[in-house]
Amino acid sequence: MQDNQIINGLNSIQMYETIAAIKNQPEIAKFQFRLKNQWIGGGENHSTIKDFYGAGQEDTSRREPFVFVNGEPPVLLGNNEGANPVEFLLHALAGCVTTTLILHAAARGIKIQELSTSLEGNIDLHGLLGLDESVSPGYEQIRIKMNVKADCSDEELDKLLAFTKEHSPVCQSVCRPVPVSIERVHVASAS
Amino acid sequence: MQDNQIINGLNSIQMYETIAAIKNQPEIAKFQFRLKNQWIGGGENHSTIKDFYGAGQEDTSRREPFVFVNGEPPVLLGNNEGANPVEFLLHALAGCVTTTLILHAAARGIKIQELSTSLEGNIDLHGLLGLDESVSPGYEQIRIKMNVKADCSDEELDKLLAFTKEHSPVCQSVCRPVPVSIERVHVASAS
Repeated sequence: MQDNQIINGLNSIQMYETIAAIKNQPEIAKFQFRLKNQWIGGGENHSTIKDFYGAGQEDTSRREPFVFVNGEPPVLLGNNEGANPVEFLLHALAGCVTTTLILHAAARGIKIQELSTSLEGNIDLHGLLGLDESVSPGYEQIRIKMNVKADCSDEELDKLLAFTKEHSPVCQSVCRPVPVSIERVHVASAS
Repeated sequence: MQDNQIINGLNSIQMYETIAAIKNQPEIAKFQFRLKNQWIGGGENHSTIKDFYGAGQEDTSRREPFVFVNGEPPVLLGNNEGANPVEFLLHALAGCVTTTLILHAAARGIKIQELSTSLEGNIDLHGLLGLDESVSPGYEQIRIKMNVKADCSDEELDKLLAFTKEHSPVCQSVCRPVPVSIERVHVASAS
């Protein structure tokens, strides 16, 4: 592989082939991601992620599943079995704005030299606990600070950041309302 | 500790003390979660989670940080360095509805015997890639199936599930729009 095919660690040839393929056959842009989760006890539960559907077929690239542990700190009735779910949301968000920025920088021919982010999000537990129905249980707001060094002007970088925010799948799943359904699939057995 | 203090793996005495403390001093319900993320290359980046603010003070319960790796599968230009950010969003969501259900079941005196969930979410890459601005880059919809066995009636269980959806912090961060800001903190250096 030629070095000039790689920009920001991405294979630009493959990137443009993917975009051309989607333009030619829009159905291959449809992806479905999946997860299974098992409650262990208290605030501890484990997720398993492996298969997904995308590019017109079931993905078979992962031999082993990824397993992640949700937990809670003692102040939230847990034992730090893992990070907690609202922290994993920040991880998803940080990763997504980072990868979206890297991708669109590559598409614009901008080389990213360094990129790190810090995130802060505020939550009022009155919402979760149902103590005040006027308080949203979710994040009140999330602030992302991006420390980025690139071979472009400040103006180009600011345009890239604005574009990133508008096109990041996780950021747009948080900024915009996404319909979520919860269905019960097992009949409770009284005991 | 008496066994009857523990329900669904949660210490019910501590749970009611927390609720009483928040009613008495609403400020302690304010939490701030935080994360730092470092881009490695391509679709790979690493998050570090340790400290947070809550219950009126900086938490010091974690000696070591949690570290999580975002990656991408080959079809999305990566090498499966980790699960990808939209999959981590499902992990956060699964964990949060699970813990929220367990918590409010405990508050109602409902013992959960088994709980597992499966999630599916659909994304159309036209959004991420900026190929069709009418397509949201985020999840189009997310479906959660909960397999739950508990010592209560089906009616009580369905009420608990509906309450869980409305009070889960991650679910409500996805269902409702959350303001997200992205700020650049480093000046680009042309090179």
